[in-house]
Amino acid sequence: MPSLVGFIGIGNMGACMARNLLAAGYRVIVCDRSPKAVAALQQAGALQAETPAQLASTPGLKALVTMLPSSAAVRETYLGPTGIFSLPPRTLRPSLLIDSSTIDPLTSRDLAAAAARTTLHPDVVEGAAGAPSTAPAMLDAPVSGGVGGAAAGTLTFMVGGPAEAVARAQGLLGTMGRATVHCGEAGAGQAAKLCNNLVLGVSMAGVAEGLALGQRLGLDARNLTKIFNGSSARCWSADTYNPVPGVMEGVPASREYTGGFAAALMSKDLGLAQEAAAQCRAALPMTAAAAELYRQLATEAGPAIDFSGVYQHVYGGQAVAANS
Amino acid sequence: MPSLVGFIGIGNMGACMARNLLAAGYRVIVCDRSPKAVAALQQAGALQAETPAQLASTPGLKALVTMLPSSAAVRETYLGPTGIFSLPPRTLRPSLLIDSSTIDPLTSRDLAAAAARTTLHPDVVEGAAGAPSTAPAMLDAPVSGGVGGAAAGTLTFMVGGPAEAVARAQGLLGTMGRATVHCGEAGAGQAAKLCNNLVLGVSMAGVAEGLALGQRLGLDARNLTKIFNGSSARCWSADTYNPVPGVMEGVPASREYTGGFAAALMSKDLGLAQEAAAQCRAALPMTAAAAELYRQLATEAGPAIDFSGVYQHVYGGQAVAANS
Amino acid sequence: MPSLVGFIGIGNMGACMARNLLAAGYRVIVCDRSPKAVAALQQAGALQAETPAQLASTPGLKALVTMLPSSAAVRETYLGPTGIFSLPPRTLRPSLLIDSSTIDPLTSRDLAAAAARTTLHPDVVEGAAGAPSTAPAMLDAPVSGGVGGAAAGTLTFMVGGPAEAVARAQGLLGTMGRATVHCGEAGAGQAAKLCNNLVLGVSMAGVAEGLALGQRLGLDARNLTKIFNGSSARCWSADTYNPVPGVMEGVPASREYTGGFAAALMSKDLGLAQEAAAQCRAALPMTAAAAELYRQLATEAGPAIDFSGVYQHVYGGQAVAANS
Amino acid sequence: MPSLVGFIGIGNMGACMARNLLAAGYRVIVCDRSPKAVAALQQAGALQAETPAQLASTPGLKALVTMLPSSAAVRETYLGPTGIFSLPPRTLRPSLLIDSSTIDPLTSRDLAAAAARTTLHPDVVEGAAGAPSTAPAMLDAPVSGGVGGAAAGTLTFMVGGPAEAVARAQGLLGTMGRATVHCGEAGAGQAAKLCNNLVLGVSMAGVAEGLALGQRLGLDARNLTKIFNGSSARCWSADTYNPVPGVMEGVPASREYTGGFAAALMSKDLGLAQEAAAQCRAALPMTAAAAELYRQLATEAGPAIDFSGVYQHVYGGQAVAANS
Repeated sequence: MPSLVGFIGIGNMGACMARNLLAAGYRVIVCDRSPKAVAALQQAGALQAETPAQLASTPGLKALVTMLPSSAAVRETYLGPTGIFSLPPRTLRPSLLIDSSTIDPLTSRDLAAAAARTTLHPDVVEGAAGAPSTAPAMLDAPVSGGVGGAAAGTLTFMVGGPAEAVARAQGLLGTMGRATVHCGEAGAGQAAKLCNNLVLGVSMAGVAEGLALGQRLGLDARNLTKIFNGSSARCWSADTYNPVPGVMEGVPASREYTGGFAAALMSKDLGLAQEAAAQCRAALPMTAAAAELYRQLATEAGPAIDFSGVYQHVYGGQAVAANS
Repeated sequence: MPSLVGFIGIGNMGACMARNLLAAGYRVIVCDRSPKAVAALQQAGALQAETPAQLASTPGLKALVTMLPSSAAVRETYLGPTGIFSLPPRTLRPSLLIDSSTIDPLTSRDLAAAAARTTLHPDVVEGAAGAPSTAPAMLDAPVSGGVGGAAAGTLTFMVGGPAEAVARAQGLLGTMGRATVHCGEAGAGQAAKLCNNLVLGVSMAGVAEGLALGQRLGLDARNLTKIFNGSSARCWSADTYNPVPGVMEGVPASREYTGGFAAALMSKDLGLAQEAAAQCRAALPMTAAAAELYRQLATEAGPAIDFSGVYQHVYGGQAVAANS
Repeated sequence: MPSLVGFIGIGNMGACMARNLLAAGYRVIVCDRSPKAVAALQQAGALQAETPAQLASTPGLKALVTMLPSSAAVRETYLGPTGIFSLPPRTLRPSLLIDSSTIDPLTSRDLAAAAARTTLHPDVVEGAAGAPSTAPAMLDAPVSGGVGGAAAGTLTFMVGGPAEAVARAQGLLGTMGRATVHCGEAGAGQAAKLCNNLVLGVSMAGVAEGLALGQRLGLDARNLTKIFNGSSARCWSADTYNPVPGVMEGVPASREYTGGFAAALMSKDLGLAQEAAAQCRAALPMTAAAAELYRQLATEAGPAIDFSGVYQHVYGGQAVAANS
Repeated sequence: MPSLVGFIGIGNMGACMARNLLAAGYRVIVCDRSPKAVAALQQAGALQAETPAQLASTPGLKALVTMLPSSAAVRETYLGPTGIFSLPPRTLRPSLLIDSSTIDPLTSRDLAAAAARTTLHPDVVEGAAGAPSTAPAMLDAPVSGGVGGAAAGTLTFMVGGPAEAVARAQGLLGTMGRATVHCGEAGAGQAAKLCNNLVLGVSMAGVAEGLALGQRLGLDARNLTKIFNGSSARCWSADTYNPVPGVMEGVPASREYTGGFAAALMSKDLGLAQEAAAQCRAALPMTAAAAELYRQLATEAGPAIDFSGVYQHVYGGQAVAANS
């Protein structure tokens, strides 16, 4: 009989991920505040629970995935009055908890510590022979790849937590994504994701400025991109996701900055990086400048515009497409 | 009999380039304010001229290369009282002028216009049959690759000027470098170089912030670099010139930030990009933040520190090498 | 018989404010999570309530003041399970609610809207004759002046809400502070406070940079301050709260940056300004740069350092006191 | 017989200053590249010299003032082939040289050193009895007050150089301006001016952001300005030169940002501050952000727009005047 997996948070990303689990033969039980989202998943074969606590006490439940939009929502889902950790001792069922939300690393560490203080139902205690753990393992496993990667099952998971639990999670993660990178202890997945997106946000903004200045000085964006790609300015933002309309096909810049990674989400991630830095000494002046740029972009052009639209923002008005 | 080529400006970069010309069989005549630099090249077989004007009127001179440290020095060499363009009409000899200095694109355009107003000695008029040009062609051809590339003859030339002249220059450029990229009309080589270095300066600073934050949050710099390189944070600054000591061998970060591209030069190039933007509408907030960072680095750690030393600057104090 | 006033949140600021109410003859009933803070106020003559809801239903209560550290704490106090607005209809006693916390303006507007949906106990319905309001009035009334101003009763209140309620609050506000500025409708007090602190944070950082550069160039900080104060660089940060040790007496800079407005609080306020801007089009690049500066300062020198310590941060190392 | 004074550089500012000298009874001899500017001053009674050197060797010349647009122009005027210091030994006439241009402090120091190496005509050697100096004294004396202050004779001079020479210059400076501030040795006047304008540029940009955010949040700009002026956000940019149209009369904001201090000049001064910082350790992140803002403003709205137009730039589009 196929494994039973819980899934809390079935928005754009989560619904795709849960469907991939169903398609691979898992039985899935979902919980979400949106009746519409729940109904759609039920049509696809999912079961439903009323609250996170109810879901987490379902007999037979092996693992539980959460995919939520904010640190506050994650805290509520795990620590709130009807949250997963509100269950009485020895009633929690899943021995593996996977949070795929992008949140701040400190909250992830707090949750891992809270998980360690809970106790599993006696039927499901698992782990190393001789010394089985009576608490569930908790992983932070934020993703990169966007809605497209979630639908295609090609996400990359950046995972923090014990190696033993990462190994146990591999079946589930491998169903929803293509790559799993173990980054370290609890919180390390979040930390790696934030650092990655920090570099991405800064380098995209730099590429945008370089291409905008070049065009203002009379250079052709396609030629200039070739020069970048063959030298020290080479980067993913120039060679894979070029922000100038017409330079590459199949990227948001060539479909009016739709269908990619929203500027508002980039702005949120850079804000999380700044928050994470609030307790440590790293100076982040480039991050601060980039966060403000994406915030300006999102308020001017709407929060859904792709983050590579920062090219049009720095170009200043009538953006010019590269000659085809 | 081998071609005679002039070379003005034989500092660290220029001396290497002139030596490569000598090694390839060119006869070279040099001019420099430093008697010591001139003496060294004379020992290697070069001839000497007292002034740019004298050099530029040498019978038999086919081409002339300049490699100077600033826009002011370039202006003096071409437009000053004893400069190349101070010669009387019909006495200038080289039909090809190549300026490999990194300067602002407007000065390059001014020089190209000034070159077009000069007249060559009747003996050397060259060009398309039937309509030979009576003025020399002028190219702006700044380089990337640093002193190492100059010594090894592996520079990349970014060239602005007429295609016909780029073709004529190919023998010389191919002797001093590995790649020639024709970027457009006069000034386009400078513009491309500035845009390239702008992107490089911003992305290196972003990589530095991402790796510094990651380490402060407890991640290992080697692991985090692998994550970057496999995802959207991939860039030359992370995968080829990593700024954290111990992550890669053979880069300045692993030899105490020596022997690379000086922070003071990056700061200068970003300043040139800002100047070039003074007449056009591109917004450059990331460039402004990066220029200030490299300026701070150069004043704190000395102007010769490699620009990847910005990692130590944002890390804030006791920089930690990655575990080997 | 003197009026009975509730006070929730008796930390550094709140305790001083409550004591001034007691000293002026008000009867005060307090509520706080810290038993120690409560005990201290009880010794001074205050009564105690267990929860915000219990406090808010105390017969005879005329008004209620809250002074809390974050938007989350304010939400919990008003909207949480035992919060002020959790009372059943027609049981709420105070006809005037004053929130003096510094939070985001949107939360203040939400609270004012929630207050309008509650109903007062029939005994206390008040307001314009003929059309008495059955709901309490809610004011956002953040303060400037710090702990010193709270103790001395010289705070300035920036108030948002209906003019009628501001008039009713004047007795209380005038007891705790020196000035009351009516800024507009609900949320306007918070908005004004954030804008004020944004300008303060930016101008202090600018003064710090100007004085640091001047000293590095050999100027005397006292002389330079005089020049600023007599010309277009004149501002409160230079003439009243000068950041260079030794230029003025009685300011944090002259007592090792203690006892003023903490860098961590300035950083928090600038973050609130950035959040408030997330839904509107104003570009805030200077605010972003300043927020990062104060964050760096707080992580380097500790969160309690006065925000004028940014002078030492930009000076870079061995800060030099002005000659006395 | 009235004193003879030289004046080189009679543009917008210089012409007003020279006219005030003529009006006060000085005889004035001018030199400028613009025949039109020279003709206008001749009509007002001035004499003319062909070159700086010729002017500086005029018998009877007591002092010489220069008012030029750039460091390069100042260098040319003093150190060029026909410059003031190109005169043979013992032929220079003015014992007092005053440079009122705004340039970088290092150039001012260089000029003072060069002046000390020249020798005056034996007839004009002056100074302390018993030990007369044989070289002229050189002052850097940049001004604040703009064209309006130059015309009205109400400029402020920030002066660097020996106190004895400042005393000798007081008659001239007091004729052209209202205040003279002795800032220190050679270069100190320039340094003070740059630091002052740095603070001004940063605080104006901060005031602009604060007022723009406030208006976006629904506050009235006049009310918010009053709050600033009564608290810690008080500064010249808010209380004397408010950037929102309609808040104050008689300021550039209320005449479409004309007739004040041009954004392009502010951008130039901030660039000079950054250059001056290139050799010293002060960190200037706020200055860098402000310099970029004014550069963007000047390229978008034209270089002549008043620097307080930065309000419209950060407001983002349809700027709203305050209600009258």
